[in-house]
Order: sequence, then structure tokens, then C-alpha cells
Amino acid sequence: MVRVAIIGASGYTGVESIEIILRHPQAKITYLTALPDECGPVTKTFGQLAGRLDMMIEPLDLDVLASKADVALCCLPHKVSMGFVPKLLATSVKVIDFSADYRIKDVSVYEKYYQPHTDTKNLKNAAYGLPELFREQIKGADIVANPGCYPTGAALALAPALKEDLIKPSGIIVSSVTGVSGGGKNPSPLFHFPYMNENIYPYGVGVHRHMPEMEQVASTVAGKPVELLFQPHVGPFDRGIVSSTYSDPVGDVTPEQLMTLYTDFYKNEPFVQVVSKPPAVKNVAKSNYCHVFPTIAKGKVVVFSVIDNLIKGASGQAIQNMNILFDLPETMGLE
Amino acid sequence: MVRVAIIGASGYTGVESIEIILRHPQAKITYLTALPDECGPVTKTFGQLAGRLDMMIEPLDLDVLASKADVALCCLPHKVSMGFVPKLLATSVKVIDFSADYRIKDVSVYEKYYQPHTDTKNLKNAAYGLPELFREQIKGADIVANPGCYPTGAALALAPALKEDLIKPSGIIVSSVTGVSGGGKNPSPLFHFPYMNENIYPYGVGVHRHMPEMEQVASTVAGKPVELLFQPHVGPFDRGIVSSTYSDPVGDVTPEQLMTLYTDFYKNEPFVQVVSKPPAVKNVAKSNYCHVFPTIAKGKVVVFSVIDNLIKGASGQAIQNMNILFDLPETMGLE
Amino acid sequence: MVRVAIIGASGYTGVESIEIILRHPQAKITYLTALPDECGPVTKTFGQLAGRLDMMIEPLDLDVLASKADVALCCLPHKVSMGFVPKLLATSVKVIDFSADYRIKDVSVYEKYYQPHTDTKNLKNAAYGLPELFREQIKGADIVANPGCYPTGAALALAPALKEDLIKPSGIIVSSVTGVSGGGKNPSPLFHFPYMNENIYPYGVGVHRHMPEMEQVASTVAGKPVELLFQPHVGPFDRGIVSSTYSDPVGDVTPEQLMTLYTDFYKNEPFVQVVSKPPAVKNVAKSNYCHVFPTIAKGKVVVFSVIDNLIKGASGQAIQNMNILFDLPETMGLE
Amino acid sequence: MVRVAIIGASGYTGVESIEIILRHPQAKITYLTALPDECGPVTKTFGQLAGRLDMMIEPLDLDVLASKADVALCCLPHKVSMGFVPKLLATSVKVIDFSADYRIKDVSVYEKYYQPHTDTKNLKNAAYGLPELFREQIKGADIVANPGCYPTGAALALAPALKEDLIKPSGIIVSSVTGVSGGGKNPSPLFHFPYMNENIYPYGVGVHRHMPEMEQVASTVAGKPVELLFQPHVGPFDRGIVSSTYSDPVGDVTPEQLMTLYTDFYKNEPFVQVVSKPPAVKNVAKSNYCHVFPTIAKGKVVVFSVIDNLIKGASGQAIQNMNILFDLPETMGLE
Repeated sequence: MVRVAIIGASGYTGVESIEIILRHPQAKITYLTALPDECGPVTKTFGQLAGRLDMMIEPLDLDVLASKADVALCCLPHKVSMGFVPKLLATSVKVIDFSADYRIKDVSVYEKYYQPHTDTKNLKNAAYGLPELFREQIKGADIVANPGCYPTGAALALAPALKEDLIKPSGIIVSSVTGVSGGGKNPSPLFHFPYMNENIYPYGVGVHRHMPEMEQVASTVAGKPVELLFQPHVGPFDRGIVSSTYSDPVGDVTPEQLMTLYTDFYKNEPFVQVVSKPPAVKNVAKSNYCHVFPTIAKGKVVVFSVIDNLIKGASGQAIQNMNILFDLPETMGLE
Repeated sequence: MVRVAIIGASGYTGVESIEIILRHPQAKITYLTALPDECGPVTKTFGQLAGRLDMMIEPLDLDVLASKADVALCCLPHKVSMGFVPKLLATSVKVIDFSADYRIKDVSVYEKYYQPHTDTKNLKNAAYGLPELFREQIKGADIVANPGCYPTGAALALAPALKEDLIKPSGIIVSSVTGVSGGGKNPSPLFHFPYMNENIYPYGVGVHRHMPEMEQVASTVAGKPVELLFQPHVGPFDRGIVSSTYSDPVGDVTPEQLMTLYTDFYKNEPFVQVVSKPPAVKNVAKSNYCHVFPTIAKGKVVVFSVIDNLIKGASGQAIQNMNILFDLPETMGLE
Repeated sequence: MVRVAIIGASGYTGVESIEIILRHPQAKITYLTALPDECGPVTKTFGQLAGRLDMMIEPLDLDVLASKADVALCCLPHKVSMGFVPKLLATSVKVIDFSADYRIKDVSVYEKYYQPHTDTKNLKNAAYGLPELFREQIKGADIVANPGCYPTGAALALAPALKEDLIKPSGIIVSSVTGVSGGGKNPSPLFHFPYMNENIYPYGVGVHRHMPEMEQVASTVAGKPVELLFQPHVGPFDRGIVSSTYSDPVGDVTPEQLMTLYTDFYKNEPFVQVVSKPPAVKNVAKSNYCHVFPTIAKGKVVVFSVIDNLIKGASGQAIQNMNILFDLPETMGLE
Repeated sequence: MVRVAIIGASGYTGVESIEIILRHPQAKITYLTALPDECGPVTKTFGQLAGRLDMMIEPLDLDVLASKADVALCCLPHKVSMGFVPKLLATSVKVIDFSADYRIKDVSVYEKYYQPHTDTKNLKNAAYGLPELFREQIKGADIVANPGCYPTGAALALAPALKEDLIKPSGIIVSSVTGVSGGGKNPSPLFHFPYMNENIYPYGVGVHRHMPEMEQVASTVAGKPVELLFQPHVGPFDRGIVSSTYSDPVGDVTPEQLMTLYTDFYKNEPFVQVVSKPPAVKNVAKSNYCHVFPTIAKGKVVVFSVIDNLIKGASGQAIQNMNILFDLPETMGLE
């Protein structure tokens, strides 16, 4: 039985992780932490857990962590996370980190989009936790950088075509729409119901922090530098991301060839389904699945993917990584 | 041309009033005020006004108000409002007040549900601005207390039956569901999109401040004390209130008699439509209309009403009152 | 391992049942049936099952059913259901029926609200499948009538007070709002997105078929005839029912006494949580839980309940019943 | 006073046109027609018109049309429309046609995406009714082809850059998300609330009929052939389209230059606002406005536009065209 601590349990990825682990036959929640003013009975923070989890959220105590947990899901925001992760690792728990702090290998890129990096030592050792593309690196890692939600969807859409050199590595457009839970649990004018409802809008034009993360993953898969433009939008729904990617083929390629390539590429992946028509976000909501549909339109390679941003884009993928780290069946607790 | 100032223009009832007056052939916005940190171009606060109203929101200056306006729509919250209204009236503009401060005639009731009242003099003179029931009092008033959104819907549903003594004046249930704009423009956890979306919940059980306001209106119409239980809920939509009222008939009454009574009662009212089947909130959204459906079920008198909480429940009704105050056709700008 | 057949698998309760059983450690789907034109790969009907269930929906063959299943979840509509259930039972599978056909014991009441009953023999033997109130009757039954969604929520809200004679057995109001999935999978103008979205409306005034079902359950619990008015509304969300019940206390009762009574009544029930503030539908969405909040307001006993209409109000409750029938832990697959 | 007939008044563009004309000081509805089984009181079809328009929808009679109307808004679907338009024109009313039948000048393109064209004579004379780009052709036309909703948004986003040769005329991506009203009033599984709600999905990949219409408009504005890929998506909201366009600059261009160009281009256009940050659909909902935001990101020219698909994308634009045809101020009834 894997003993799981959740560091920063008071947000959406915290409760989502709790819900998955409650259904996991070989893992259990043993420790929940948060900032002092968010501590107390977990059911007070998350009414949906009433009768399901009788536990307190407590301030983090590293000794307690060391004695109670085998793995820490670190659900802290970037910058905060890299202040804690070295201490968590020092207790010899494994760490699966949800922030951006351990995802971007090029420190100068990280520092351009975020802030100075203060834990480059662990950054070097961190595995990028997208199992479908980097499973081998995850096994045996002490720290896994759980991918961003947008990069997960974009990478799964683009990887087969990039790996097989079917598309040009520049001029790629990734145009995505996320549900509002992607913006987190803190109320703000942009996510206030009467503003967000019946609304949809682009944001972060040219500057979204998931763009360099996408380029890193894409470049690694392609084996050469990939340059892309990522444009996020937020729409009036709770969960899910649809990513529509547009790229230029290298040479001739038919929709059938593309479909065959994608189907083969993912044929052993339990959580990626290559579907035969444009995918719908609702079909993957509340699940760890990604649906991908590749085709050709007007001479462009067009690939769509859909995921649940909180599950395959966060907590579900973290449990998938945990299963890999602890030699459990990868799908355990996630089907 | 009636010159209109909006005091407290930065909230939902402010912009809703602006939009209506922009379409009003005999009124124009001449002055917009708000707290200092909400001042600036009105299009910055309300992106939907881009290209439609080129005006600044300014801190309130009573001399400017006196020189620029014939009427002030006072969109301030309760308690704040009664601090300003005496000053506004002193400039000799007419005041239509959106807060609760001038609605409840019995100061002890007001003080039980709100706080000490500091302007009982003007309270005495204020007309309750529900034209369908109190049109004569509104004419010639210097200050009109614009009704609450819930009380507007409930009063229009219950008034004909109460006035004709068709229902018992106690044990009445008013069970309402409002859209989220009723909660105002300030972000809060309860109205954060990922919480409010796909949700509905009751609140304010037994203590909602609109309950005594409803009882006052109902009692005035009935000519005797009326006692009711008002239970609000909030649901995942922007605008509208559906009020479902349940009461006990006095003696025998058929659905047909009820329908005839209601149809007669409202036959000259342009904004109240007695409809022949259960009404839908969407049919009155973005309009000043109220749809009412009275019937009998299991021996109870059941009357439903729907309104747009921001229009017939706030800004539209205010303009309707303004039209009355300035001898304009009551429907002007509202159809 | 319980082998489960789903008869009428092409609707919302069908897929919801499939999803629950896929997570159930001691049950598996062995047979899916539907009308001929709805047959084919289950993933074609339900895109969300891609990669999760590789099975065909087939026309019903009773011999196949007999050989493949221990229990049939019969998800057919009323009237159709009672045409099939006798045949299903003849194959010696147990039947959990989702329709209204086996719920109402008084044939004359059934026939007033529905149509002539053609299987009164099995009606007599059917257990009403609300485990919290009728667990003993369910054990050992061959046929379980799975309760209606509205009656489930209403019964759990009213039962403790009725059983203890705390409220009068007449004049009770049950005012409920359901999500749109309650209307089923067939497109119709009332549930067309541009009509239903941003809308809420009452329907079925005085005539809804769940009213007599509620009265039957309430009367059984109370041990005397209970008369109530049930008023449903539909609101713009997928899942969930909030039921707000209003009744008159017998004698004096405080909110604290009520809370104690409810907490005691449900203290051993895993799926009913008595909560300390008004409940929110979202807290029980996608779960088999019911949250109940009892209090006193303006002299009325006011009890709210929330459930997921497709789970505790349909498929989850069916699996709960299945667990009881097959001596499995009642919560298995449902937490 | 312009007398307006609406041919095919029973759909969303019909009622939207009615609502606008009810507020128009120089136009009035004089005739409403539909197929026989959709005839009857207009308030029966559109409950929101209760008390606002007391008129029957009638089967079309050309003599009545000739005697009652100056202009016909023809809200019929494509193919049906070109069967009626010649007859409407023969009565000497002006026609504003909402279908695709008179939009595409190249008959072979029309026939590739639609069906054989049966009224090429009027096609030749039809003006394309996008006033911001083709105002002069609209004046004096007998028939105006009201543009498609998607092409309106895309054309207003791309026109300034194309006209000034700032972007390359090929490889352009237009990725749009529409609200569900764009799919019309007929219920279907794809727009059934429980499917569409909490969902978003792409459709029409590479084959959407608005793509050639966009290319025609873009080519006309650019003065040379423009080739683009249009990808529509539908999201869970009633109204609005956000179009995100991605293209390659010709030579160097800064965001500031682009902003200046766009601001100048539209400086006299009352309904197009060039805004200084990414636009939100909600800011143009229920209005005839289009908000456009042009910028540069990762070396691409990125221009966003938002419109209300039923107003600027249909009925509002039709009234704008009507105002032009009848020499009324272009904004009349639309502000």
C-alpha cells in the first residue's frame, strides 16, 4: 500500500488527487498539508468529501511527512514549490511536483518566463512525467515533474507526427480552449460566474508560460528544435481542454497514412485513444483519457486532442506517474 | 430630455441602467460616479460599452450633480446609500434608490434585518417603486425606493390573490431561484465559476432580508398582516428569477377563476403578462417583463412568476419609475 | 463475480451503470441489449467508453441472457418495462428495474398516473429499492423496483421527520429542481441547448408522476396516509436534484432537535450525510451520496436534500441494490 | 416607416430580427410567414414576445407580401431560399437574404459546397452585405446576400491586413468557436443540453461551407487569391463567435503598426471597435458590435474578433443593410 502525502491539498488538484486515491486499491492518503489558514477538517474545505475522508489538513511538518508517506504529491504553485521540494526529497519520500519548477530543463528559458531558479540541482534529476513519451525516465526517478495541462494535450497531439518527421518543426499553431478550473480556486473577476458564463476569450497572447514547455517536449520528441505558437482561450465549462493543432506536412501525406501512424504510435497506450472523428471534451471529462484525431485539411496537418485538465492534465497523470514509480499497474485507480 | 446621473455606476445595476438609457429616446446619461478607485473611462470598467459611451466615471461632486442631472439613480449598497441620499435630495434632483434603505417602512423591522437607520425622515416620504401596485404614490415622489429583485417577482405573483382575499394570509411559501448576477459583481468563492457552474443551492434559510420586504408589500396589498416563508436558491445562470409560490385558498376556487382574476388584474399593465402555462426565465431575460402563471394543484394555490433580476428586478424598474416621475410614457426605452 | 446484463443500455442510465460496474471489483458487464437500431459497438453510442469497454450492444435474446447474467438492470421506460420483466424473471436472473412499473403498489394509483398494469403478479413481489428505508425487503427479492430520482431525494429528506411524527402528514410541499439529464437522451425543443441554457422553468404542475410515488413512500414510513404537493423544475445543469421541502411541525421542535434526530437516523448509512448548512448539488454530483440539511424557518420544518439524479437517483442506487442482493458490501464500487 | 416582412420567421434569425425591428423607430413588422405547420400566433412560437407583438405567422402569399412590405428579410435555409427569392423580387420588394444562396459569386464553388444553383441571374446582381467592406455595392441593390456568421467575424479580423498587403495570402488559419444558437432551432443529439453542456468540440474539418465564402471575401479585399483554412468549433454558450486568426507577415511589422493600421481602417465604422486587449465574446453578446484585436506573437500576425452570431452575424447585420437600402442612419435600431 503506497502511503501518499499531498502537500498543498487545499486547491483543485489537491482534491482531485484525493478523489482518485480514495478509489485506488493500492494507495491511501496518509497526510494532507496546507498553509495554516487553510488547515482544518478536509471536509470543511471540500464539502464533496463529507463521509468519505475523515482527516485534517495540517501545516507541513517534515518529520511527520518522513514517517507517514512514501510519496508526496506537491500541489504548490511554481516558485513556492522549489522552496519546498528539496526539503521533501531530503526526507527520502519520492516527489511528484505539479508546478512548473522542474519541467523546463533550460534554466535560462525557465528564468525568462518565470523567475530565478533556486534548485537547479534537483531540476537536473527530475523526470518529465508524460508517461506516453518518457516512461523509461520516470521509472526510478526520485522527482517527477508533472506536466502542464496544455502541454499534455498538445504533446500527445503532435508527438507522432514530429517523431516521424511528418510535419515541419516550425510555424506550428496550437490553439487551445480550457475549462475554467484551469484557472484555479481563487476567485477573480475573470472567473466570476456572471463574467465567465456565456463567455469565451483568448488570453496570454504570445507569452503563455506553457509555450516554452511545449517547445521543449516537442523538440525532445522530434530530436531537433521545434518552434510553435501556442494560443490559449478559456471557455464556459468546468473541465477539459481541446487543442487544435495546425502544421505543415513534410512531403505528401494522406489522412489515412496519418491515422495509421497515430494508431500504431499509441496502440499500447491505455490512456490515449486515437478516434475516427473530431473529439469532444465531454468524452474525456472526469477521466485520465486523451482522445486524439489526426487528419489533413486544406493541405495542413490538423490534429485535435482532448483531455480533462485536472486529471490527465494534472492529478490523474500524477497517479499514473506514481503507479510507475511504485511498480504498480499503470492504470490502477484510473479506470 | 431627462438628464440622468448614476451614483455607484461600477456595478451590474449601474451598467444595466446605462444600457437602457442609451436606448431611451427621452433620457441621457450625464454623470457617472463611483468610489475613487473605480473611476476612469466607463469603457474600462465595462468593455461592452466600447464605442457606445465615451464618458468618465468620476468621484461624486454634489455641485456637479446639481448642475448636470434631473434624477439620480442611486446604485449604492444598503447602509452606504442612506449616507448619501439626503445629500443627493438636497441638490433637488429626484432620487431612485436601488438599496434596501428606503423600502421598509417599519424602522424596527429594518433595523432587525439590517442596521440602525440614519435617515428616517426621507424613509417616510419614499414611495415604494413597484408601479403595478403603487403607481399613484410614485407620481410626484422625490424619492423612490426601487424594490428588491425577489420581492418584485413574489409580489407580482401573489398580489391579485391577496388583494381579492383568495388565499390565506399565512403559511405562504415563496421558493425562488435566482441567477448569479443577483449576487453582484464582487468575486467570491460561492460565485467562482468552477464552484457555481453545474451547481444549485439554497441559502439564507429563514433569514433573507427580502422576506420582511415581501411581507410588507403583501400586507399592504392584502390590507392585513401577511406572513410568509421566503426561501432563495441560486442557480447556474446569469439572469432571472423564478418564484414558485404555494398558498392555501380561502374557500373553493378553480384554476379558471384564478386565471380570470389574474388576467383582469393585470390587463392594463404593459409589463406583466399572465401566461397560460408554466413560465420560463429565458422568456423574460434581458427584458422588463414579468410572466405570471396562476393555477391550483393538490388543493394549493400555486403561482409562478419569472423576471429578469437586473431589469424588472432592478434597472428596468428604475427606468419605469423614472418615466412615471417625469411624465413620460411608462414603457419608454423599455420595450 | 456478479455477471451483469443491461437491458436498454443505450440511454443515460445505461451508460452510467456501465461506468459504475467498470469500477466495481466484484461485478462485470457481460451483456448489453437495446432496440435493433441502437445496436452496435457500445463505443459508437458512448464515445466516452473508447478504450474502456470493447463490447457490442445486441438485440435481447433471453437464452443468451440466461446463460450470461446473474442480474439484469432493466433500463427500459415504463410500460415497455413491464412487457419484458416477466420474461427476464423467467430466465431466473434477478431484475433491478429502473422504470416506474414496479414501484407503486396500489394498482389503481399506478393506472391513474400511467396506464393499465399488465404484470400485477410481479408488482406484488417487487421490493422498493431505497436501501436506507427498505433494506430488509430488498434482501432476497427477485425483483427490485429502483426508485424514481425525485422520490429518492424527497424521501431521504422527509423520512426521519415523518417516522418520528415530527411533521404533519398533510400540506407538505416538495419543490425540486433537476438537471437536464433527468429528461433523458432524446433531443427535444425543451432540452435543446439554446432553449435550456440560461433558463429554468417549472413543469408538471400538480400532475407529475413522481408525486404518488413520493406519497406512497412517505405514507409507508409514517405509518399513515401522507399527502404532499410535489413541484418539479428543470435548470441549466447536467446532473443533480435539489429538493426543498416545507412542512408544519407537530408541536414544538428546535433546529437542534431536528438535527439530532436526522443525524441519529442516518448515522449508519454510508451514503446519507446530514450536513450542517444548506447543501449544494455539486457536492454530490458524480457520486452516490445524498446530503440532507434539516432546520426550522418561520415556524416551518424545512429540509433540503441533494443527490445526483443519475447515480443515487438511478444507476448508483441500482448497484447499491445489486450489492445487497448478492451479499456484497453495500458500498462496493460506489465510493 | 419601412414595412418589413420576415419570410421564414419561425427560427432564431426570425425572432432576432423581430426583436430588433420592435426597437427600430423607422421600421415595423408587417408580415410574418412560415411553413404551414409553423403558422399561428407568433407568441406561441416565441414566448418571449408575449405582450410585445400581437401578430400571426401566416403561410406566404405573394400578393399580400407585395401589398404589405417594402423589404423582405428572407430567413430561409440555403437551397430553399433560391426557390423563393425570384418570386419575392418579382413583387418589387427589396430582399435581404440570410441563406448562402446569393453569397458566392463563383457558381462552381457554390455548387461544389452546396448544390446546383437555380437562380444565377439574381446571384449576379446580389450585393454581399458586409457594410464595412462593401457599403457602396449595397446602396441601391435589390437583393443583398447577408453574410455568414463565421465569415463576418473572420473578414473583419483579416480585412485591414489583407488590404494593406501586410500578411501573406496563403497559409492563413481561422480557428473559431461559436455558440450553439449557430446550429439553429431544430433539436439534435449534438445540441441536446446534456451532450452540449460542459462540452466543446471541433467539426466540419476542412469542409465547412463558410470556408469558400471567407476566401471569396478575403480575395476581393486583397485584390488577389487568398487561401485559408477555416476550422470551426462549437462551445457551451448561446451566442457569439470568437475567431482567432493566424497568418504570416509580409516583411517586418510591429504590434503598434498593426494596431494603428486597424484603428485607422475602422475609425469611421460605428460597429467595429478595435480594442487594446484580447476581446471577450460576452462584451458583444446581444449587440451588433464587433471587437477586433490585432497583434504579433512569435512572428505571426494574430488577430482576434468577436461578434454575436445572431446579430452582427445575422439579424443585426441585416437591419444594418436595410438601413443602408432605405437611406436611414446605418446604426438606427441597433444601438
